[in-house]
Formats: sequence, structure tokens, C-alpha cells
Amino acid sequence: MSDAPAEIETLIEMMAKLPGLGPRSARRAVLHLISKRGFLMQPLAEAMQAVAQTARECLNCGNISTAEICPICAAEKRATGELCVVEDVADLWAMERAGVFKGRYHVLGGTLSALDAVGPDELRIPKLVDRVAAEGITEVILALNATIDGQTTAHYIADQLEGRVNVTSLAQGVPIGGELDYLDDGTITAALKARKSL
Amino acid sequence: MSDAPAEIETLIEMMAKLPGLGPRSARRAVLHLISKRGFLMQPLAEAMQAVAQTARECLNCGNISTAEICPICAAEKRATGELCVVEDVADLWAMERAGVFKGRYHVLGGTLSALDAVGPDELRIPKLVDRVAAEGITEVILALNATIDGQTTAHYIADQLEGRVNVTSLAQGVPIGGELDYLDDGTITAALKARKSL
Repeated sequence: MSDAPAEIETLIEMMAKLPGLGPRSARRAVLHLISKRGFLMQPLAEAMQAVAQTARECLNCGNISTAEICPICAAEKRATGELCVVEDVADLWAMERAGVFKGRYHVLGGTLSALDAVGPDELRIPKLVDRVAAEGITEVILALNATIDGQTTAHYIADQLEGRVNVTSLAQGVPIGGELDYLDDGTITAALKARKSL
Repeated sequence: MSDAPAEIETLIEMMAKLPGLGPRSARRAVLHLISKRGFLMQPLAEAMQAVAQTARECLNCGNISTAEICPICAAEKRATGELCVVEDVADLWAMERAGVFKGRYHVLGGTLSALDAVGPDELRIPKLVDRVAAEGITEVILALNATIDGQTTAHYIADQLEGRVNVTSLAQGVPIGGELDYLDDGTITAALKARKSL
């Protein structure tokens, strides 16, 4: 396609499979890497190799880690009885960046989806039910995305855990710094319904 | 930043340096790679390592290759006496994809730029002057981008080669499939000035 040597062509094709890159931007990225092959490409290849060999999913919660049990599950002081359920590891990282949640996580690995044939057993929902009993969880906080699939999954999990544990979910409303004029009707409706007295 | 293990954090920072990727999309790409570490991440790391160790610039023309002299410079039948001057390897690949040029190339490695302090010696312009004499070039075709820096560079090269060889440049005009309504004034002006009888 780009008349490059076969090795480079292969590399471009692989890079083009990454989310956010297409054939053209992959070509640009590879040419950039080649022009800096000593101090960027070689270290990047080594870093990628290292992660490919050491990264694994925590057997307990599904977080990405280099150990069988991730540091959050291993930390005794995070056994607060609160369990935060997220869709994927990026969401877990986002929660950790906020730095406000002190309990443990459970990464589902996606959402229920009839279209993509994702049922409860494809996600870590059975494992979640086990953990609630095994770890003495008192509150499950559903931090799922405010999308249709996310909310469907939240309702399914709430049903599964009914009567066993207190299930809550993130509040919906106006984001900090948000301007009403730019918000969708759904958000404004949710914020109005959940209004609080000052 | 993303509360990932240190190895993964390092990888995300390196990926974020690629053109077209930022911190957020690098994080997404790395998570995608980790989720497919067996059949995408490991091969990608190996392909990158292989290219980092074998890719080099052709000593003659500056094309990216795995040999000291690239296949185009090495091919006897491409010694047509025509030399196509391009800014970078991506442009060379674009010309080769078109498949219409049968001669050899000369990759400048950029354009003259007063702002970025790029002078003739930072580019491969002295080497170009040498090649014109050494390889018995009869025509130098300037295939530089139609930008201000590209055209400045074209004029400089034309000056350097004046009287030694026939210097031409790509025609400017309406691109194939282009609609006049969407073209800028400069292109329409160039196309009108260079009009041909049918």
C-alpha cells in the first residue's frame, strides 16, 4: 500500500489496528518513530514487550496489574466494605485519579448488550455476586457510564444483589463547570428531579 | 496520571509522543493492546523492535530502507535520468503509490524554514547538487508541497541548479474529482493561468 519495505509495511498495518489510528495516521506515526529510532522507537518496543509479558488481569477484580492480585485488592486498608463496580479499567483509573474513593473495585469488562450478544457470564457479574458474600461487602456502588447499555447493566446487577447488600449508583446531574445552555434535556431533567435544598 | 503500574504508565507516556495521539488516546490504545496482548501487543512489540534495528536512511537518496542503498537507487532500470525531489518519505511513498514515475528520488528531509532555522545544509540539498552531476541527471522534477515553505525551497533549489540541468515542478490546478465551489482562490487562479486547449 505505501511501497515501504515489508517489515515496515507490517508494522504500519499493526499500528493501524489501534483505536484512534487509521492507515494514514499509522503511517505518519511509524515514519516519526523511524526518524527517532534510537531514542523513541527502540525504548517503545522494549516497554511494549515488557508490558506484554508482565501485564495481567487481577484474578479478584479484573484491574490491570503486574501481579496476580492487584495492589488495590492486596491493600488491607482498602477493605472498607465498599465495592465500586466499573465497566473497564479506564473507568477505574478515572475514579482513582479523582482520589476520593477508598474502597475496592470490580471491573465488569464491558456492559450487557443484546446486539453484541454479551450476557452476564461474559462479564464478571457471577464473580461480583461471589465477592459480595466472600469479602463482607456492605455497599455496592455502581459507577457505570450513563449510557443505555450502562444503565441496563446497572439495573441487572441491582436485581441480582437485591436483599443481599445496599446498592447505590453515582448521582446524575449538572457536571462541575457545566453550563445549562449546553446540557442535554435528559441531564437537566435528572438534575431537577434530584434537586437538593441548600 | 492514570494510576496504572509504572511499566504501563511509561508505555502510555511514550505512546502519547506519537503524532496523532495524546495522553487520553494513548491510554485507550495501551488498554486495547493489553486486552489483546497475545495476538496484537506481543507481535507489535516484535515488529517494532525489528524495524528499529533494521530501518535506515538510504545513503544516496534518503528513502527509508533496510539496506544501505534503497531498492529504488539500486534498480538499474530506474536510472532514467529523471530525479524527483520530495520533502519526506511519506511523499515518496505517495508518488510510488501513484505508480507513474519511473525514475529515482531525492528526499530532502524537510523544507527550508527561517523560523525553525533550517538552512540548505540541514536538508540534503548539497547531496542533490552532487547527484545531478554524478548520476547524469537530465531533469530534476520538484514535487514539493504547495505550501509557502515548499515553494521557497523549490525556488532555492532551482537557483542552485540553474544552467546545470532542466528543472521542472508538478503542475498546479484543479485536483481530479475536485469541485470548483470548494477550491480556494489560489488554486483556481493557478488553474486558470495554466489553462490548456482541449
